[in-house]
Amino acid sequence: MALIVQKYGGTSVGTPERIGAVADRVARFRKEGHDVVVVVSAMSGETNRLISLANEITDEPVPREMDVLVTTGEQVTISLLSMALIKRGVDARSYTGSQVAIETDSSFMKARIEKIDDHRMRADLDAGRVVVVAGFQGRDPEGNITTLGRGGSDTTAVALAAALQADECQIYTDVDGVYTTDPRVVDKARRLDSITFEEMLEMASQGSKVLQIRSVEFAGKYNVPLRVLSSFEEGPGTLITVDDEVDMEKPVISGIAFTRDEAKIIVRGAPDTPGIAYKILGPVSDANIEVDMIVQNAGAAGATDFTFTVHRNDFKRAMTALEKSSELGSPEIIGDDTIAKVSLVGVGMRSHAGVASKMFETLGAEGVNIEMISTSEIKISVVIEEKYLELAVRALHSAFELDRESA
Amino acid sequence: MALIVQKYGGTSVGTPERIGAVADRVARFRKEGHDVVVVVSAMSGETNRLISLANEITDEPVPREMDVLVTTGEQVTISLLSMALIKRGVDARSYTGSQVAIETDSSFMKARIEKIDDHRMRADLDAGRVVVVAGFQGRDPEGNITTLGRGGSDTTAVALAAALQADECQIYTDVDGVYTTDPRVVDKARRLDSITFEEMLEMASQGSKVLQIRSVEFAGKYNVPLRVLSSFEEGPGTLITVDDEVDMEKPVISGIAFTRDEAKIIVRGAPDTPGIAYKILGPVSDANIEVDMIVQNAGAAGATDFTFTVHRNDFKRAMTALEKSSELGSPEIIGDDTIAKVSLVGVGMRSHAGVASKMFETLGAEGVNIEMISTSEIKISVVIEEKYLELAVRALHSAFELDRESA
Repeated sequence: MALIVQKYGGTSVGTPERIGAVADRVARFRKEGHDVVVVVSAMSGETNRLISLANEITDEPVPREMDVLVTTGEQVTISLLSMALIKRGVDARSYTGSQVAIETDSSFMKARIEKIDDHRMRADLDAGRVVVVAGFQGRDPEGNITTLGRGGSDTTAVALAAALQADECQIYTDVDGVYTTDPRVVDKARRLDSITFEEMLEMASQGSKVLQIRSVEFAGKYNVPLRVLSSFEEGPGTLITVDDEVDMEKPVISGIAFTRDEAKIIVRGAPDTPGIAYKILGPVSDANIEVDMIVQNAGAAGATDFTFTVHRNDFKRAMTALEKSSELGSPEIIGDDTIAKVSLVGVGMRSHAGVASKMFETLGAEGVNIEMISTSEIKISVVIEEKYLELAVRALHSAFELDRESA
Repeated sequence: MALIVQKYGGTSVGTPERIGAVADRVARFRKEGHDVVVVVSAMSGETNRLISLANEITDEPVPREMDVLVTTGEQVTISLLSMALIKRGVDARSYTGSQVAIETDSSFMKARIEKIDDHRMRADLDAGRVVVVAGFQGRDPEGNITTLGRGGSDTTAVALAAALQADECQIYTDVDGVYTTDPRVVDKARRLDSITFEEMLEMASQGSKVLQIRSVEFAGKYNVPLRVLSSFEEGPGTLITVDDEVDMEKPVISGIAFTRDEAKIIVRGAPDTPGIAYKILGPVSDANIEVDMIVQNAGAAGATDFTFTVHRNDFKRAMTALEKSSELGSPEIIGDDTIAKVSLVGVGMRSHAGVASKMFETLGAEGVNIEMISTSEIKISVVIEEKYLELAVRALHSAFELDRESA
């Protein structure tokens, strides 16, 4: 008998039949004696349908009204799921984000949760009801409807689990867990039984899209055990928890993340003077563009080579911002949007030397040139030519023995 | 400079283009210096789409969850209309029934408004904003979402007009006003410039479907001037007000309403004893069937003929209830669902004798047999064979000079 928060995404509730299947699963958990709070997204396609309506009205919909519009998507799902549960003899009650109440700041379309009032949920759970909550939405101090940004239903689930001190927060998706790497690239990729919050964060920020980064941060901060499972198949999924015991048997590397979402910009031969980094990145940041990796090398006498990466969508704007900047003198600016980033992630790296050298050796043996390197305590990322991406990921997956079942 | 509440129904906001046209009209009123509160329904077809979704989930959707579901329809419209207004440079803000707040009782799917908090609306109006409110919905004392029943957006508009003491409540529909009778039956039917609340109530309850009865009652009770206009054409519409001065020029009859929605049941030769009316109508009312007209004639010695009408949908159930009833002895029970009811409506009737006799004379001259008669202070209704309906309405329309433009 546990208190479980379950979250079902848009694909899992995409049709009335699938909503019925979710209700079957929730009913089973109830029958086993668990208290269940369910968080749902809008039926797949619905949010896009609503956004299209707005785009037919105006090119610049105001954020406050966008939130009023798109939150109807989850409101439809909560009512349908509650009906489906009640039909199955399971008492249930639905709540919008405003009703629960999930209180947020007033940043429409990207609000942050500030407080959750759990008294209505507690009362329903005590009365034996399943509580069905609309994901991704809340209300600000004035009672305006807000959203946490697209995909924010994971964050709602984790926040509710934290507020209710739930035993587990289960995120049901269309994959059956977190993998050592993308199975579409490496067919020997394996599902991980468990992974730490830190590793999951690095995997997510490096391009593994199983969970929203903010929900993992939240879960880590409030120590909410988070499990990723499939809506469509039975299975234990992957449990994401704190790394509370040093497991000597734990493999050095947990997974390999990668992304093609970045582009590289080299500023060659800029004057090697104090403040040059700011002079280069200032115009980029003024254009509201986030920079990911940064590498600086002293080049020829009095000059320096400065390289950084930005999201590929921001590449052209970043180039323009740099070329317009008058403070750089006249260095050579070279852009490259045919790069990819590959990252090894694992808390085991902390206690094992030689991960980096083994990575470089493996890539070198395959003839893959490394263009940039960046490291953290539990991650090593390299930028390579995009065309080598699959080759590099497969070679590393094999070299670090991720293909093998762990004990 | 007036405070105007406008209500636009589902057809008027049925597409993004039509929402744009509504925004144009509202913007024009703002430019003229008026304060405007707009109440909107769901886009046409949307409520039915939502109900179909519920029906795919369960045969018996619980009312609480139905209200959560269908209220998303108006929520979509308020956000789109607000966006359209802002695009036109008119500051606007949308509110759901819960947000406004329109407080109702807890009768889901048929709630009644108990209180309206106007402070948010006042603040927005004072700040020069148009207030856009979702029709048909409210919240109960526990914060649950409720609806006023289908078509209840008219009631929302009138209630807001009453709460704000608006100068006029304008109901925009797909007709350009209230007519002397249905123009599809009488091509000489004329739009009325004005009609009293009492007349409008009688017209509505006798089958003229321009406005929801409850909204007219509400408007009459709180003395809110109500105007029916077309969303698609310009024009003054029909003003519905109190009859505060006796207009000697006012025609005796304002309009002719009719309905085919009823069926007649005759109980012939029931024992003519005290309480027989109750014995006949008791089983019908126990079956939750509403009775409209009732006529009782003494028949042969010791026996009586008792005739009443019910809604045609309830006809079979009413017949069964009567036939099963053991308390009636064994009278002859005759049903007829090929009848129609025609009603003359007009406050002028009060001061003019002879309306009834002129009506009967007109029908007699056309060979139309009158099967039942029922009168009120401002209405005379007759039941006739359904096949004579059009003939009767046209003859009366002409006899009472409704074809002629009034001075």
